[in-house]
Amino acid sequence: MAKPILIVNGPNLNLLGTREPQIYGSQTLNGIEASVKGRARDAGMKVDFRQSNNEGQMIDWIHGAREKACGIIINAGAYTHTSVALMDALLTCNLPVIEVHLSNTHRRENFRHESYIAKASTGSISGFGGFSYELALDALIYYLNENEIN
Amino acid sequence: MAKPILIVNGPNLNLLGTREPQIYGSQTLNGIEASVKGRARDAGMKVDFRQSNNEGQMIDWIHGAREKACGIIINAGAYTHTSVALMDALLTCNLPVIEVHLSNTHRRENFRHESYIAKASTGSISGFGGFSYELALDALIYYLNENEIN
Amino acid sequence: MAKPILIVNGPNLNLLGTREPQIYGSQTLNGIEASVKGRARDAGMKVDFRQSNNEGQMIDWIHGAREKACGIIINAGAYTHTSVALMDALLTCNLPVIEVHLSNTHRRENFRHESYIAKASTGSISGFGGFSYELALDALIYYLNENEIN
Amino acid sequence: MAKPILIVNGPNLNLLGTREPQIYGSQTLNGIEASVKGRARDAGMKVDFRQSNNEGQMIDWIHGAREKACGIIINAGAYTHTSVALMDALLTCNLPVIEVHLSNTHRRENFRHESYIAKASTGSISGFGGFSYELALDALIYYLNENEIN
Amino acid sequence: MAKPILIVNGPNLNLLGTREPQIYGSQTLNGIEASVKGRARDAGMKVDFRQSNNEGQMIDWIHGAREKACGIIINAGAYTHTSVALMDALLTCNLPVIEVHLSNTHRRENFRHESYIAKASTGSISGFGGFSYELALDALIYYLNENEIN
Amino acid sequence: MAKPILIVNGPNLNLLGTREPQIYGSQTLNGIEASVKGRARDAGMKVDFRQSNNEGQMIDWIHGAREKACGIIINAGAYTHTSVALMDALLTCNLPVIEVHLSNTHRRENFRHESYIAKASTGSISGFGGFSYELALDALIYYLNENEIN
Amino acid sequence: MAKPILIVNGPNLNLLGTREPQIYGSQTLNGIEASVKGRARDAGMKVDFRQSNNEGQMIDWIHGAREKACGIIINAGAYTHTSVALMDALLTCNLPVIEVHLSNTHRRENFRHESYIAKASTGSISGFGGFSYELALDALIYYLNENEIN
Amino acid sequence: MAKPILIVNGPNLNLLGTREPQIYGSQTLNGIEASVKGRARDAGMKVDFRQSNNEGQMIDWIHGAREKACGIIINAGAYTHTSVALMDALLTCNLPVIEVHLSNTHRRENFRHESYIAKASTGSISGFGGFSYELALDALIYYLNENEIN
Amino acid sequence: MAKPILIVNGPNLNLLGTREPQIYGSQTLNGIEASVKGRARDAGMKVDFRQSNNEGQMIDWIHGAREKACGIIINAGAYTHTSVALMDALLTCNLPVIEVHLSNTHRRENFRHESYIAKASTGSISGFGGFSYELALDALIYYLNENEIN
Amino acid sequence: MAKPILIVNGPNLNLLGTREPQIYGSQTLNGIEASVKGRARDAGMKVDFRQSNNEGQMIDWIHGAREKACGIIINAGAYTHTSVALMDALLTCNLPVIEVHLSNTHRRENFRHESYIAKASTGSISGFGGFSYELALDALIYYLNENEIN
Amino acid sequence: MAKPILIVNGPNLNLLGTREPQIYGSQTLNGIEASVKGRARDAGMKVDFRQSNNEGQMIDWIHGAREKACGIIINAGAYTHTSVALMDALLTCNLPVIEVHLSNTHRRENFRHESYIAKASTGSISGFGGFSYELALDALIYYLNENEIN
Amino acid sequence: MAKPILIVNGPNLNLLGTREPQIYGSQTLNGIEASVKGRARDAGMKVDFRQSNNEGQMIDWIHGAREKACGIIINAGAYTHTSVALMDALLTCNLPVIEVHLSNTHRRENFRHESYIAKASTGSISGFGGFSYELALDALIYYLNENEIN
Repeated sequence: MAKPILIVNGPNLNLLGTREPQIYGSQTLNGIEASVKGRARDAGMKVDFRQSNNEGQMIDWIHGAREKACGIIINAGAYTHTSVALMDALLTCNLPVIEVHLSNTHRRENFRHESYIAKASTGSISGFGGFSYELALDALIYYLNENEIN
Repeated sequence: MAKPILIVNGPNLNLLGTREPQIYGSQTLNGIEASVKGRARDAGMKVDFRQSNNEGQMIDWIHGAREKACGIIINAGAYTHTSVALMDALLTCNLPVIEVHLSNTHRRENFRHESYIAKASTGSISGFGGFSYELALDALIYYLNENEIN
Repeated sequence: MAKPILIVNGPNLNLLGTREPQIYGSQTLNGIEASVKGRARDAGMKVDFRQSNNEGQMIDWIHGAREKACGIIINAGAYTHTSVALMDALLTCNLPVIEVHLSNTHRRENFRHESYIAKASTGSISGFGGFSYELALDALIYYLNENEIN
Repeated sequence: MAKPILIVNGPNLNLLGTREPQIYGSQTLNGIEASVKGRARDAGMKVDFRQSNNEGQMIDWIHGAREKACGIIINAGAYTHTSVALMDALLTCNLPVIEVHLSNTHRRENFRHESYIAKASTGSISGFGGFSYELALDALIYYLNENEIN
Repeated sequence: MAKPILIVNGPNLNLLGTREPQIYGSQTLNGIEASVKGRARDAGMKVDFRQSNNEGQMIDWIHGAREKACGIIINAGAYTHTSVALMDALLTCNLPVIEVHLSNTHRRENFRHESYIAKASTGSISGFGGFSYELALDALIYYLNENEIN
Repeated sequence: MAKPILIVNGPNLNLLGTREPQIYGSQTLNGIEASVKGRARDAGMKVDFRQSNNEGQMIDWIHGAREKACGIIINAGAYTHTSVALMDALLTCNLPVIEVHLSNTHRRENFRHESYIAKASTGSISGFGGFSYELALDALIYYLNENEIN
Repeated sequence: MAKPILIVNGPNLNLLGTREPQIYGSQTLNGIEASVKGRARDAGMKVDFRQSNNEGQMIDWIHGAREKACGIIINAGAYTHTSVALMDALLTCNLPVIEVHLSNTHRRENFRHESYIAKASTGSISGFGGFSYELALDALIYYLNENEIN
Repeated sequence: MAKPILIVNGPNLNLLGTREPQIYGSQTLNGIEASVKGRARDAGMKVDFRQSNNEGQMIDWIHGAREKACGIIINAGAYTHTSVALMDALLTCNLPVIEVHLSNTHRRENFRHESYIAKASTGSISGFGGFSYELALDALIYYLNENEIN
Repeated sequence: MAKPILIVNGPNLNLLGTREPQIYGSQTLNGIEASVKGRARDAGMKVDFRQSNNEGQMIDWIHGAREKACGIIINAGAYTHTSVALMDALLTCNLPVIEVHLSNTHRRENFRHESYIAKASTGSISGFGGFSYELALDALIYYLNENEIN
Repeated sequence: MAKPILIVNGPNLNLLGTREPQIYGSQTLNGIEASVKGRARDAGMKVDFRQSNNEGQMIDWIHGAREKACGIIINAGAYTHTSVALMDALLTCNLPVIEVHLSNTHRRENFRHESYIAKASTGSISGFGGFSYELALDALIYYLNENEIN
Repeated sequence: MAKPILIVNGPNLNLLGTREPQIYGSQTLNGIEASVKGRARDAGMKVDFRQSNNEGQMIDWIHGAREKACGIIINAGAYTHTSVALMDALLTCNLPVIEVHLSNTHRRENFRHESYIAKASTGSISGFGGFSYELALDALIYYLNENEIN
Repeated sequence: MAKPILIVNGPNLNLLGTREPQIYGSQTLNGIEASVKGRARDAGMKVDFRQSNNEGQMIDWIHGAREKACGIIINAGAYTHTSVALMDALLTCNLPVIEVHLSNTHRRENFRHESYIAKASTGSISGFGGFSYELALDALIYYLNENEIN
């Protein structure tokens, strides 16, 4: 399988492990990247793992994935609830998109209950800390196999 | 691992495979039960898999799980969006709870965007058809191991 | 015409004739059943007439109609305004569905103005007491003839 | 029975049969008028059947019915959802009023879910195309007989 | 004082005295016209008193008043709550506008609490039956004298 | 006519004439009192004219009017929009109540569009500055004569 | 006094004493039943004390009370906030109905602030744990005596 | 038990027995005071019973109770639904607070459904007329005993 | 190109040039008609330019355009925000529809932000005074050419 | 600078230091008065520092400031969110007004997010406990100097 | 005319022609740039045509236009509905601003109906695909000539 | 005190002094920087003063402050009302945060009344133009001293 999976991380996720650990856990983003890359390698997949605090940068990366990736896993952080532009960017891709969240957003403030990312996603996984990414990887590989994409 | 996992399915899920396949896919509930039981067996776990169209019956089963199960996976179907009583039942259990959905409910009607089940869940997985259950199983086993529950 | 019409009555309709007659009239549910069965007999149709206060039971009956009935007439009572699960059950049937109400629900409290049943129905008849059922029977027979269903 | 039934049709109903047939069917308003007049004749009733795109004209006709008609059947079209004035006009009449719609308005846009006409009606029938009018005629005759109005 | 006062009455007011007397009283519109014309005559004023059920006709009359009247008294009936067009018509006039109502609209249904007419009026008088018009006449004359309009 | 009319003025009305004259005009509350007392004297009526910035004081005065006054004219100022207690106090009186306002409150901020006072009033007059009180006096006298109160 | 008082308990109340004791206290439902039956016995009354997680079952019990009980005390649990059908069932009874709650629902989530049960109740008592039931018993007996019901 | 119970009554309650008896009953506030003082005396408690139409006065009394009373029973009348200040005052006290109402506020206008007082109360009792106060007294004494407060 | 373009103008537009010129400019409707007819002539098109204050009249004209016009330009004035009937009329036409406004409605009151006309239009142009019509003409001609309509 | 600054404190602030110290801190109102008076003295200013639980009293004091003070600092406590009358009183003054709060109201309940006082204020300072007053004093002096008021 | 027109394109517009062509058409952004530059050249104008997915970059460009451009045409894409910052940036410019959209946003999801850009624009053109830009160019040139800007 | 204070300015603040001076005053951002740095120097503090129109850049700077600054003063401009991501960034810092605004945002449009920044701030100061920053500096130094942070 030649094309990699793009994993996009949004604002404040670079601080993972140090930021409000009672909500987000103590695992760092580097730790998650290592775990998910290992799991992908076992499945014969490559992963392109990125983080930005900048909405425009995230849109550029998603555009880049249209030609170069076989699927997208996205944790858009706070932009999940405010960015119509990210939703539109994901809709331009003819790729499976999986939304992940570390925490269960439905148990937090009301303004975190609605998701623009979900409106452009195949499926959604939330609440399992860094393991959400590994489940998303499995889901994406399953989806690609089911639909014979590649 | 002595105690089984309770998997509760709510209203109309007994018709899976025949009901609006463009939304829910063609897999039957029996098919899902077989897959998830196989996967559980491989992990050395047992599964107690049930379905009811009756809210009260579902509450009774959840109460039963308080002593007899190590965790709950629940697809509450349409009751997801209307049943405070099911939410309260799940909150009475000192168990990990994982919400699953076959479809991505955020892409459907507005009244399917809010979830009372999510307010009582550890995490949530939606949009992958029957494979959502297998991911939920993996997530639950991971959670139990992480928290050394048994 | 071999298959009968299923007529499902929801919560509190068993008390018809004794409950708030200034709203619902003095006719009993048995009286309605007799009238509608007579009218069906004249048209060469059979009617399966049921009542339950239990949402889950009503869903089971609707599921049963998928194979065994040629159409559904439903007065879901108070569940009309709260049950997404009943709406989903009706949507699983490939049958004409007619919603009936004894009273004109738009002249009552605001929470009786929206109807989940209507979102799954071919048409709706309300405000004519027990005669609403007879009109619904005529409408259903007309619809079956028009669409050559049997 | 000396006094006729007034049937009032509102905006855009003159185009019936040519306008969005996937919603409203292919029957013309003339066709409906013929059917309903035939059915009325069989029942020994007369029908005064009218259409206008003008809210004020419709109000004038309803006022006229106060003395001259034994009941009103009204399909107010789009004015159903916006005209308090039509509701007030119907409330000035001491006559039974039956609301009809060709389509099931609850399955369409949200702004078609509320009805000012319903607040002034005895009952309501919707979703059966032109046959809605024939059911309304039966309902009105039944109502007049029950209440010995003439 | 050469120019007359235009008094415009909206939908259903022609039925005054016969329509829901418990809300609107038993006085007819002719009776009100006579009273208000008498009071105007005593004050040396003329009155042009009109009624229509047609929103467009009412707008035309208001346009006509721009040149020919010294002030407007308007009871827009149900259009009070729905007609932005009438509000815009009144705003085109450089004349004092007084809104009258027979009943106290704040004690009735919620949709009668907001008034587009009020947004284009100098003042408002409601709740005194036909005497509301006489008070409006006094108010208008007072206003014209105060502002030396004529 | 032995019993006087109670005229109650609410918060900030003591500053009339100095406060935001572009909204409220330059007439003082003393000036209004003088005018309205003169007009009452001409009609053979007495007036008890009061002002307070204190909601509780206003309620006490209204209670006092139950035995001692023949009617109430009230300009509750800002309490119009917030005081359920004043509404309840007026409802305890078996007296005609007339709401007055100097300005047309519907042309001001949204939170000035709803009136608790109106829900307890016979009628309402607003927008004519101090002359609103004189019209209210006329309306009250008319009402008392019509209903032969006293 | 021959007829007993029906006390109906709704979903999850069977778990009382084990479920979230910081909200609901440590008293069990059996404990409450014993206390309230003792207090009733002292007053010469009998109590029929029941619990179900099933909305339909609760409706059936309420229907049964129409002939067999002298009054109803109901803690509908989570159905308090969602069940129009239970409200309608209570309204069919010509009996005094008292709503009880263990906790003060106004201090909890917003969706627990509105009560359909209250709309069909004589009075309501909440926030005193199991003692709420004893107060309700006193209130019901007082009410029966005052109204000489039996 | 040395410290008395403070019972605070809010606006318009001084008129009890004369005001809208179909809602509030014919018992006077003096009558309630006598009953509740008698019942307290039997229980060895003292009661300080007060009424004011003035929000500020009520706050002062609540402040005074912080040192001098063992608990508060409050019927805040219309201030129940509008006064954040009263809620804050009650929250400053480290005392049990019981909210009472004569009528069942959930069956009245919508603006009487939310209660700021409830947000600062231990429990709430409504709908039993003057007997609500006696139940509140029993509830308070029970609470004090349970928590060994004195 | 044989069929003309229908240009429909709604309520109060006949007063253009005299009405609130700070919002709508000083150009008259005749002036706009002349400009747009000249521009159409240069493009070899004919224009049928009309104005009415009457909603029903406007609907009739739109119906007439179904056979006789090649496209519609509509400035519905205040009906833009209230008329579902006009929207429905436009939807019956199989013609391109262009909405125009003289002012930028998004900078005015909130009730002018939503447009029923837009829901039935190909495109929309607002804010350029009379020149909005000329741009609409260019847009319509471009659209007709692109889609080879005629 | 001859005229003093009026500092008005609203309901429950008299209890400062004893009331919910985790929200409001342990400083008393006397302590704040002393600090702010000292700081004013250093700047050559006088301060008139008052507190009342009575809305009407606060309005009276604000009225008094119109002639006698050079500016107003106001902590209206809970009245901040409910009192249109206080807002109106402040608007009658031609003086700079500064709103202060001890706590950051945006981090508390939703009903504390909107402020009527802010709509009548030059600026607002919140969240710094008693030091908020000292900052307000500095801001007011700065403002007076900038605008050469005195 | 020395200063160029700035045309700013927002997020995802770089993908034009490949993204959801059923909504946005098949024309590329380069194609639009060429057309609009040609049309500008014919009119003796220059165009500075830019695109960015980055909100901050777009704000910087708008700031730059304050000195260097004679007007702005902006298609803010999804930021239209979410960016107060872009609205504020446009308001800082003393330049005519024209909003363009390729599609008719009122026929799409509700969250695309409100526009912050419109609140800072002279006028708006939407629904004509790439031709919207050419119409905007004509409108801007017309506006500049009318107002003799340059 | 070794660590500086970070002062972050958001979109459009670079234009201060030229942009809508009637709202924001004529002082430039450089002017504010100079004043606040001078005041900090007097207090023995250093200031790191920055501005960006880019949300992602602002988040990066806030992240940087976690290690390098002793506190944050932030004027997030229009992002105040839309950026959950900035709120989350501030919440990751274990530092005092003070929100400043030049104008009183509560007197402007409704969408400027809610603040995500406030939800992550210690306190808030608005309405004093550039002097808001100096007050914020004083507040921050006071806070640091009180809490012995360094």
